[in-house]
Amino acid sequence: MTAVDSDLHDRIEQLAQIQSEVLGTGVTREVYTPAYSEATELVAGWMRELDLQTRIDAVGNLYGRWQGEQPELPLVLTGSHFDTTLDAGRFDGVLGVLGAIDALRRLKAEGFRPRRSIEIVGFAGEEPRFGAGCIGSRAMVGALSRDDLDRMRDRRGVSVAEAMRGVGLDPDRLGDALLNAEDIHMLVELHIEQGAVLEADGLPIGVVEHIAAPHDFRVTLTGEPRHAGSTPMAMRRDALAGAAEIVLAVERLSRDSLSGTTVGTVGILNLTPGAVNVIPGEVTMDIDIRDSDLAARAQVTDALLETVAEVSQRRGLALNVTTTTLDVPAACDPRIVAAVRAAAVELELPSRGIVSGAYHDSMVLGAIVPIGMIFVPSVAGLSHHPDEYTAPEDLEHGVAVLAGTLKRLAA
Amino acid sequence: MTAVDSDLHDRIEQLAQIQSEVLGTGVTREVYTPAYSEATELVAGWMRELDLQTRIDAVGNLYGRWQGEQPELPLVLTGSHFDTTLDAGRFDGVLGVLGAIDALRRLKAEGFRPRRSIEIVGFAGEEPRFGAGCIGSRAMVGALSRDDLDRMRDRRGVSVAEAMRGVGLDPDRLGDALLNAEDIHMLVELHIEQGAVLEADGLPIGVVEHIAAPHDFRVTLTGEPRHAGSTPMAMRRDALAGAAEIVLAVERLSRDSLSGTTVGTVGILNLTPGAVNVIPGEVTMDIDIRDSDLAARAQVTDALLETVAEVSQRRGLALNVTTTTLDVPAACDPRIVAAVRAAAVELELPSRGIVSGAYHDSMVLGAIVPIGMIFVPSVAGLSHHPDEYTAPEDLEHGVAVLAGTLKRLAA
Repeated sequence: MTAVDSDLHDRIEQLAQIQSEVLGTGVTREVYTPAYSEATELVAGWMRELDLQTRIDAVGNLYGRWQGEQPELPLVLTGSHFDTTLDAGRFDGVLGVLGAIDALRRLKAEGFRPRRSIEIVGFAGEEPRFGAGCIGSRAMVGALSRDDLDRMRDRRGVSVAEAMRGVGLDPDRLGDALLNAEDIHMLVELHIEQGAVLEADGLPIGVVEHIAAPHDFRVTLTGEPRHAGSTPMAMRRDALAGAAEIVLAVERLSRDSLSGTTVGTVGILNLTPGAVNVIPGEVTMDIDIRDSDLAARAQVTDALLETVAEVSQRRGLALNVTTTTLDVPAACDPRIVAAVRAAAVELELPSRGIVSGAYHDSMVLGAIVPIGMIFVPSVAGLSHHPDEYTAPEDLEHGVAVLAGTLKRLAA
Repeated sequence: MTAVDSDLHDRIEQLAQIQSEVLGTGVTREVYTPAYSEATELVAGWMRELDLQTRIDAVGNLYGRWQGEQPELPLVLTGSHFDTTLDAGRFDGVLGVLGAIDALRRLKAEGFRPRRSIEIVGFAGEEPRFGAGCIGSRAMVGALSRDDLDRMRDRRGVSVAEAMRGVGLDPDRLGDALLNAEDIHMLVELHIEQGAVLEADGLPIGVVEHIAAPHDFRVTLTGEPRHAGSTPMAMRRDALAGAAEIVLAVERLSRDSLSGTTVGTVGILNLTPGAVNVIPGEVTMDIDIRDSDLAARAQVTDALLETVAEVSQRRGLALNVTTTTLDVPAACDPRIVAAVRAAAVELELPSRGIVSGAYHDSMVLGAIVPIGMIFVPSVAGLSHHPDEYTAPEDLEHGVAVLAGTLKRLAA
């Protein structure tokens, strides 16, 4: 087992070296970049070392299949993603793909022969390079249109379709990525918690019961970019002052939500023209509101949109609001929850039920197939951060529970 | 006179075509760019058409001298700047340089022979490309150190020294740009108002009595860039939420200032990492507080710094504050104010005393020589804006009053 552990750790480090740009001490590997293609080739090579049949679909999802003894049966899917957000950690997503490879290696070493085929998937573009995330999984369930690929743009203005063409993918073949739900038995995804619940409870395994889902808005406020020195306070239409009120409303409304689990964030805020002596004439901000409780989330977003309208009217700012993401929280399938629990018990690893605050491709796939997730602890709950860290023994525990779960689901 | 008017208008248009980058429908011509060098050559050519002796000093200030009959006397300086802020108008600064050329053409046509030499100056870098403005005039009065040229950086991280070298200037010759105050009799600057006071009063000429001065801060707040989905509201250290409180405090404190004339602006705000699903870990903002009333300004900045400290402490954000600009308001010299008024009266142009909310190179030169300014109306008070506009007859009035003033000061 020691060899396996050290292999997993080494592979995580090896993948972390492949970056689309260097923004800090963390990892940046955005989807549809040459670096992402290089990473895909590296991971596919590791899959082939295990004799998995690999293929890359029309939107760049990577598959590696272990043929079951009854390949005509719906198969078991497992995996996650290996793109990253900006200056991120090395475990988010990566563990679910490389850990699945290790789990299959372990099952093969044990002489296990699956009845159902098991397919590892590396979902393309889980992180929201183009405003909304989960491009690969949305394409699989038909929740992405050809128009979306032209409309959705990254922070430099590049559309999904342009980025895809840049790495040799054909956006017009989007439909080829569609999954047939009848071909899939279940999906289970191993992931770091990205929160601090397991650490606080001193538990090695989280059995995910619900996945919270985001409602994301892009809000643009337009005022007047006048001279900062010669425009009296009473004559201003300052887009940033309006945006500041909205940032604080996002915080206040989320904190006061009925469920107590709503979180709200303004992660992107850009202003123009951006000069010290000019009043900001326009601000664009991306707002993310999440909960596993749909009613509580809707109450927060409704109140927020009222506040946004009130602020823009009171300040004489033109307002544009678009919804960039509107996802439904997913409940994990009780059969998968039971299988994960059983696998943990067999390994004598204590576990607890948990809600995923972060969304995952599993949430998207949940619209068409039964899903489940396994969490391992994140030190200090840090994620989307260079210091994101999960201890080697926790990685190992996650892989072992995933292997035990796959054995049950594929048997 | 018609030919002169149309020349001035044409030259303003011609200069507006020279841009360092195109950011919108306005003009962007930042100092120490090839475009700025090209503009300098164009303006110097127009000076030479009038037989002025031109030279460019060590920091890129352009001079054009009309030798007086007693060249040993302290000379009269007039001018302004022809760099621009981002996506700006075509009159700010430009009028003071091209209008001075026209005023001298007019005086020559009248057969006027100045006793003192009259020198037109195009100050380099009045607009704050590098955080603080008035680079050329600060160099003239010795308010800029060689270290400042390495320390001050533009929005892309380029230092003043690097930018200077890029256009063939030697930052190590900074000291050569120093003026000897004894060589200067007075400075008078023609400028658009950049506010709406003259328009509201229906007056063609403003006689500037005071120039408000900025106190600028750069504030950096550092929190933790955690995952936006899995970090409960109570566990966040969100740098943007702290920045939002400060933006609103700048507005509130300026609005409530004792003088009633204080203005406060956050014109630049950058956050990292800038992803929709990551809590902003760090925000840097540039704050500008101005007044012609130094005590009122100090009261606002003191209260603001207290608020900034309180917000950062309450939210657990690390704080860094640096002063990027700390200027003293300038009072205009009564002799120049009287000369401007007399020139306006002679032309039968009604005028009023006015405070300049914007700062100008005159404010900086005010530290060593007597200064004065002439304002003409800005339509709707717009400036630092593509729609900045001053009607041709108002340009003409400004040039005529400047000519009359120079005649009085140089006689």
